Amino acid sequence: MQALKSLVESNTFQRFIIAVIIINAVTLGLETSTSAMATAGGVLYLLDRIALSIFVIEIVLKLLVYRQNFFRDGWNVFDFLVVGVTLAPTGEGVAVLRALRILRALRLVSVVPSMRKVVNALLKAIPGMTSVLTLLMLVFYVAAVMSTKLFGEAFPEWFGSIGASFYTLFQVMTLESWSMGIVRPVMEVYPLAWLFFIVFILLTTFAVLNLFIAIVVDAMTVVEHKEQDQTRALVSDDHDELMHELRALRSEIAALRGGPGEDRGRAR
Amino acid sequence: MQALKSLVESNTFQRFIIAVIIINAVTLGLETSTSAMATAGGVLYLLDRIALSIFVIEIVLKLLVYRQNFFRDGWNVFDFLVVGVTLAPTGEGVAVLRALRILRALRLVSVVPSMRKVVNALLKAIPGMTSVLTLLMLVFYVAAVMSTKLFGEAFPEWFGSIGASFYTLFQVMTLESWSMGIVRPVMEVYPLAWLFFIVFILLTTFAVLNLFIAIVVDAMTVVEHKEQDQTRALVSDDHDELMHELRALRSEIAALRGGPGEDRGRAR
Amino acid sequence: MQALKSLVESNTFQRFIIAVIIINAVTLGLETSTSAMATAGGVLYLLDRIALSIFVIEIVLKLLVYRQNFFRDGWNVFDFLVVGVTLAPTGEGVAVLRALRILRALRLVSVVPSMRKVVNALLKAIPGMTSVLTLLMLVFYVAAVMSTKLFGEAFPEWFGSIGASFYTLFQVMTLESWSMGIVRPVMEVYPLAWLFFIVFILLTTFAVLNLFIAIVVDAMTVVEHKEQDQTRALVSDDHDELMHELRALRSEIAALRGGPGEDRGRAR
Amino acid sequence: MQALKSLVESNTFQRFIIAVIIINAVTLGLETSTSAMATAGGVLYLLDRIALSIFVIEIVLKLLVYRQNFFRDGWNVFDFLVVGVTLAPTGEGVAVLRALRILRALRLVSVVPSMRKVVNALLKAIPGMTSVLTLLMLVFYVAAVMSTKLFGEAFPEWFGSIGASFYTLFQVMTLESWSMGIVRPVMEVYPLAWLFFIVFILLTTFAVLNLFIAIVVDAMTVVEHKEQDQTRALVSDDHDELMHELRALRSEIAALRGGPGEDRGRAR
Repeated sequence: MQALKSLVESNTFQRFIIAVIIINAVTLGLETSTSAMATAGGVLYLLDRIALSIFVIEIVLKLLVYRQNFFRDGWNVFDFLVVGVTLAPTGEGVAVLRALRILRALRLVSVVPSMRKVVNALLKAIPGMTSVLTLLMLVFYVAAVMSTKLFGEAFPEWFGSIGASFYTLFQVMTLESWSMGIVRPVMEVYPLAWLFFIVFILLTTFAVLNLFIAIVVDAMTVVEHKEQDQTRALVSDDHDELMHELRALRSEIAALRGGPGEDRGRAR
Repeated sequence: MQALKSLVESNTFQRFIIAVIIINAVTLGLETSTSAMATAGGVLYLLDRIALSIFVIEIVLKLLVYRQNFFRDGWNVFDFLVVGVTLAPTGEGVAVLRALRILRALRLVSVVPSMRKVVNALLKAIPGMTSVLTLLMLVFYVAAVMSTKLFGEAFPEWFGSIGASFYTLFQVMTLESWSMGIVRPVMEVYPLAWLFFIVFILLTTFAVLNLFIAIVVDAMTVVEHKEQDQTRALVSDDHDELMHELRALRSEIAALRGGPGEDRGRAR
Repeated sequence: MQALKSLVESNTFQRFIIAVIIINAVTLGLETSTSAMATAGGVLYLLDRIALSIFVIEIVLKLLVYRQNFFRDGWNVFDFLVVGVTLAPTGEGVAVLRALRILRALRLVSVVPSMRKVVNALLKAIPGMTSVLTLLMLVFYVAAVMSTKLFGEAFPEWFGSIGASFYTLFQVMTLESWSMGIVRPVMEVYPLAWLFFIVFILLTTFAVLNLFIAIVVDAMTVVEHKEQDQTRALVSDDHDELMHELRALRSEIAALRGGPGEDRGRAR
Repeated sequence: MQALKSLVESNTFQRFIIAVIIINAVTLGLETSTSAMATAGGVLYLLDRIALSIFVIEIVLKLLVYRQNFFRDGWNVFDFLVVGVTLAPTGEGVAVLRALRILRALRLVSVVPSMRKVVNALLKAIPGMTSVLTLLMLVFYVAAVMSTKLFGEAFPEWFGSIGASFYTLFQVMTLESWSMGIVRPVMEVYPLAWLFFIVFILLTTFAVLNLFIAIVVDAMTVVEHKEQDQTRALVSDDHDELMHELRALRSEIAALRGGPGEDRGRAR
């Protein structure tokens, strides 16, 4: 068991897995080329099966080694899902499942430590955004219900259901064709529709802006705090040295007077 | 009265109101689904009436408790308006009024303290923006009058009135279809129109950019100031301690000389 | 002369001018409304003539008071041009000149001190941007010449002349319809056109991003420097006080030894 | 040889080259104007040949002076390529090669020191972006393979090959016509396509945002560090001066006691 563990955690094993991931990503990419499929379709398919087998063996090994702890690491869960999804019985949605195989290339992120660090850094930015994101979601929900009730009948394609409205409002928030594509046609039926959409755009872009600002300010605060801590440590150290010197001086003066200073023993 | 006040301010009461708001938001969302309306339209309508009654009672209670102070809190005014608007006599704009009911979901913001804090933080960013916003408004007004006079006759749909021009210029500022949709057609009639629009785009995007920068810098200044204050407090404290030690030393030396130091009593 | 100067610089005079500017802005805005013109067109025209006369008198007065110094202030030059442009002999471009009258509303910026400060702050951000702006201009020039030579023949409307290319590339930089509107049609004739446009988009957006970053960093540097200066001043003051105390101590010890300390007179 | 070196590095030589670059850029720009070509086509062509000859001579001279060191400077390589490309034998792609001549104008960047500094500063921002850029590339690759497999058959123009998908996804990332132009048509065939595209947009815009934030934070960290270093240097200097003074004091007291202090010789 210990031998298995040291195998799974060895650099050689990791590098081998990285190589398999990259080769698999390339073969899956080549599968999109009809000429590559015509000349070497069988080989590509074979390589994909081999890669999948290796991934399955890797996960089984890790399950054997870590057991219940395996699923405590989010990255393992990610690997498990990404590999597992392509083992599912192929049925109707087979084309989709086949397309999902390329998600295995994302395993690079979970296997290469430097990539892992980047993603962790990105994810760390999210908690600082939750409060504004919740607010944004609420505004979206209210706007979706309102626009469905107001414009749903006249524009079923855009606002026919709450889902359609959510999608259309997301498009409006990204400012894509919001006016020429959506609001101007709507205004021909409901002349005051601009009021709704301009308020929505101002609210959501202001919220998104503040999301963004929150991340910048959080990142800067960390930098600032670290630098200041260093300065404060220096100030404290210098202060302690001075105090030590002063106390020594005082004791000497006390010695000069022929006895200990009255408050020489005072603790700092 | 005091009993009423403690009821209104109790956590249980607040949680109850939050539950009612959420349930009401869900029922109003379901009202947009035709299948949900077909199977349970009556129930949804009933639930909405009950929720509205609860909100009315809540506000009446708060009015009784806080009296004239009720309207001093902006959030109360917000609640009052949001609930009040759906009590208005239903007439022509009935569909719009019915759609406005979902605004009650925004009461979540006024009731949940953490949401309230987020919105307050967002609102706090606005005063720092007023001066640039005023300037932006002025530029918009000037541009709207100019474009109405210059292009209004040839393009009544876009620049026919000052209101239409304001809307079109807002669209141009968001860069949505500004060139292919608006400026290229205008340039076919007025070949020099690009001059007006490019100056407008540069001015407004630069102003919006500065709005944004102002918020970042304001937020960072607060962080910076806080950290520096802490450092300065440390420096001051250390200094005071050193001064105290030095004064003590001096007084000892003075004692050594056989009398108090000539300026021992000097105030710091 | 002195009386004239104190008149021109008095608050009453300034407030009067501000009022005239606002009234004039409103009348010019009303001129865009056909109904307002039908009922009160003559009055609006008269008010405009009166406002113009007041502005001319104002500038003449200022010219009398400040003489050659008048043109040393950029804001005065701005006022002079904005008022002067509408005094130009009306000829062919009369509609344009009439439309330019609304530019007088921008005089609010030059007259209201707080607005002036905002614009000055915005202008102050520009010098820090010149180097990147020059680079951006160079990239634009090179791209405009290249695209005119490459695509000018096949797409004369977009790339027919260097001017047309400049405009189209500006549109591409703002990302407006760059792909569906411009690059996809171009790629049907020149399949490799994406290479040119994607490099152009990456270069220009990266440059614009850096413009923006430069402004944020400049603004933050000022804040940071100010705060640090304050901290350093505190450190220095504290240090001086300590040194003073120490020197006093030293001189007392010297006195104790029966004479002045050997280096008591040393300058700090 | 030394004479040649001082010639090549002289200010006069540099200014002459800058002048030639600018003149060449202008003549190449004029070549795009049919009227300019009609009246002075021969002169423009001649000027271009002369400028090219001067650039060739310049590079030959530099090669003679610096020999193998010439190619160690990235800017020299840039100059070499930009000049070399227009010396290539003219064949099929002649129009493209002729268009590439304007790239010589970019030599301004390599010749003018202040421009060089700006570009170097921009390039310095790139290493801090590599990790997020790699991640972005991976997301793009996975999304391109997936979209080719999922939508390639039904929309060959947009997703027919992996290259086409890359281009279309880049367009979607810039938010240009992503919904009205691409996703809505796709959703008519695959109703769940929005899931794929909205996840893609959220991931890529979040990544780009973080690229941007990384640059801001890096730049600010440098500023912050410099200021803090200055503060810390001040604190240290002040501290050293105080310590020096205290030690002197101590030695005096030791002298007072009739001998050197027991730990006077202690090194700091």
